Amino acid sequence: MDQAASKRRAARRRSKAAAARPVLADQLPWCQPAYLDRPVEPVDSDGIARIHDASMRIIEDMGILFLNDTALQILAEAGCRVDFATKNVRMDRVWLMEQVKKAPPVITITPRNPDRAITFGGRYFNFGQVASPPNVTDLDHGRRMGTREDCRNFFKLAQSYNCIHFSCGYPVEPMDLHPSTRHLDTLYDKLVLTDKVVHAYSLGPDRIADAMEMVRLAGGLSSAEFEAQPRMFTNINSTSPLKHDWPMLDGAMRMAARNQMVVVAPFTLAGAMAPVTIVGAIVQQNAEALAAIALLQTVRAGAPVMYGAFTSNVDMKSGAPAFGTPEYIRAMQISGQMARYYNLPFRASNANAAQAPDAQAVWESAFSLFGSCSGGANLIYHAAGWLEGGLVASFEKFVIDCEMLQ
Amino acid sequence: MDQAASKRRAARRRSKAAAARPVLADQLPWCQPAYLDRPVEPVDSDGIARIHDASMRIIEDMGILFLNDTALQILAEAGCRVDFATKNVRMDRVWLMEQVKKAPPVITITPRNPDRAITFGGRYFNFGQVASPPNVTDLDHGRRMGTREDCRNFFKLAQSYNCIHFSCGYPVEPMDLHPSTRHLDTLYDKLVLTDKVVHAYSLGPDRIADAMEMVRLAGGLSSAEFEAQPRMFTNINSTSPLKHDWPMLDGAMRMAARNQMVVVAPFTLAGAMAPVTIVGAIVQQNAEALAAIALLQTVRAGAPVMYGAFTSNVDMKSGAPAFGTPEYIRAMQISGQMARYYNLPFRASNANAAQAPDAQAVWESAFSLFGSCSGGANLIYHAAGWLEGGLVASFEKFVIDCEMLQ
Repeated sequence: MDQAASKRRAARRRSKAAAARPVLADQLPWCQPAYLDRPVEPVDSDGIARIHDASMRIIEDMGILFLNDTALQILAEAGCRVDFATKNVRMDRVWLMEQVKKAPPVITITPRNPDRAITFGGRYFNFGQVASPPNVTDLDHGRRMGTREDCRNFFKLAQSYNCIHFSCGYPVEPMDLHPSTRHLDTLYDKLVLTDKVVHAYSLGPDRIADAMEMVRLAGGLSSAEFEAQPRMFTNINSTSPLKHDWPMLDGAMRMAARNQMVVVAPFTLAGAMAPVTIVGAIVQQNAEALAAIALLQTVRAGAPVMYGAFTSNVDMKSGAPAFGTPEYIRAMQISGQMARYYNLPFRASNANAAQAPDAQAVWESAFSLFGSCSGGANLIYHAAGWLEGGLVASFEKFVIDCEMLQ
Repeated sequence: MDQAASKRRAARRRSKAAAARPVLADQLPWCQPAYLDRPVEPVDSDGIARIHDASMRIIEDMGILFLNDTALQILAEAGCRVDFATKNVRMDRVWLMEQVKKAPPVITITPRNPDRAITFGGRYFNFGQVASPPNVTDLDHGRRMGTREDCRNFFKLAQSYNCIHFSCGYPVEPMDLHPSTRHLDTLYDKLVLTDKVVHAYSLGPDRIADAMEMVRLAGGLSSAEFEAQPRMFTNINSTSPLKHDWPMLDGAMRMAARNQMVVVAPFTLAGAMAPVTIVGAIVQQNAEALAAIALLQTVRAGAPVMYGAFTSNVDMKSGAPAFGTPEYIRAMQISGQMARYYNLPFRASNANAAQAPDAQAVWESAFSLFGSCSGGANLIYHAAGWLEGGLVASFEKFVIDCEMLQ
């Protein structure tokens, strides 16, 4: 009888433990997804050649500003026409294309758990959670500044959902951490709470160097092992129009030098920092992206780089960025054509400008995803949780987006 | 001074009138939309030929039930193997394809206002509002049975929104009208409140004959003028599996005889009335659709007919139809391939199974629209206002859908 009672107690304990364990919604197993359909290609090959030619004329005749003396030095030594006073760099199109051709078309990143390795390029694609909003929102606590706790909760979600393949930046800025050490604490949280591929910000020399060392240590790797293949990635945005800023260039060059992936994503909003026509904005995006990719290939031939696109239109009344629009869909599809023209992997985003996780948020996100996926994007940033054009990370939206991604 | 006062009064009147006038959200002008992108085609030509062959074997070896003696008589006279006891009809595939080839690939329907003529086929497509739910819902009055007033309100919305190109059936069933005269009152409302293309139900001989006469009179047409070109359309669903019912066949034959368009849309839910695999369900859909189209071409060679598809999957736990699923998207894309294989215009739907106009409703609708449009559908039924798998028409959802359609 004692034995029976003890068995009953054990069964009760087991059932209580099961009840306490959080149960995730049904989900598909972890896998490396790949597109089955051909991408949508709105522009014919003649049009692509014309976009390419227009971008080449910008790079040859107008030049791009590189606000980083090391970068200027490297480009001058490589034969570019560098004006050290204005920091303007003009590149020859033949030389530029030679550099771009050195970049690998397909990139596999292996995080500390090798089972979570993911591949970008060809038909392979991967989703990352929202990155970088200063604010966070959920129904229970409302809209507020982000904290380390919120950030950690998003990391746990990103780890739990199989449809999230990697973790971009800070899902929400942990404003309660001091900026001088924020990158250390947050990357520590990310490396402890997830075993998926991580991104680190290129915001200065110490930070990206620290980040690379932390990822190396988390993987138990020697420096040589770390540099033998991509283990992490960063993302840089140009300061459009036609300008690359100091900290991002610095971080990108340090990452490229150690064989880590750099996504170059010009932030060219049509009607704001770029021409109001979508094709005009893509010409500019293309010039900014290729100029930075050429620099990184000069730093290290064959460095893993990705062609990024953030081209969308702005609301011409308020100046606010608009996402999930027909213009955004076409911009992603044409950007995908350009990336394939240069044989580079392609990054797009799941963005929306809605104020709440409502119908507008969902249709804008659905159309953003449609634009990204029909454009053949290999890396989809902000795939879950983004609201208000990137000002807020929403827990509810995270779950809604994961439903759509699955 | 009197003059100035009178001017002020006139200005006040004008401003009051402007305030009283209902202001619609900004919308694009009325136009005939056309696809710019190629449809997505998941199945290769060998696969299409195999689906065709499997459907032919069903029609040749198993046969389709036609629960209508006139139809049986016509098919027997045309040489089909008709079993009058079981009402089963087996057709020879060569004869069948000869009939299908008589159907026009592109159809223009001209309503009472010729400026509202719309074209189905090729790259042209058109949206219609929700049809046939018994219930209606809005935030102010909740979920309730439909009335004539609700129905009229939907007609007014369908007329006001330029992205709604035609008016299918009853947007909600007017339960306060007696069934014996409901079709007369409702079609009267529709013809008075809209000048767009109308659909009438094939629910018995008097009803469809009445409907055709009403559309003829509304257009001020002689019988010869009415029959000279398509002026309206009907939609018939098979009683899957492999059965066409009496009233729908009767209505369809009367419409075809007078050169009016018939959409044949088998209601083949995979796992319920059709095989659980999507391709299996499409084989059955294809057999049911082609058999009815062959009958209508025998009634009148060259009668305007459309290939319809409603193939989706059911929730295997509850048996409820599921829409906006990956299966639905693939079903619409493959159905579009089949319609183009037979050179017929293609009908799909914007459907969802959500209980409220919430995030689920929007993402299911967005994916339904994506499936329909990437499948190259020429007619999109239920494009605005459908909820609960067709049990409810929602005013809020109508407006949300119109935002997406635009």
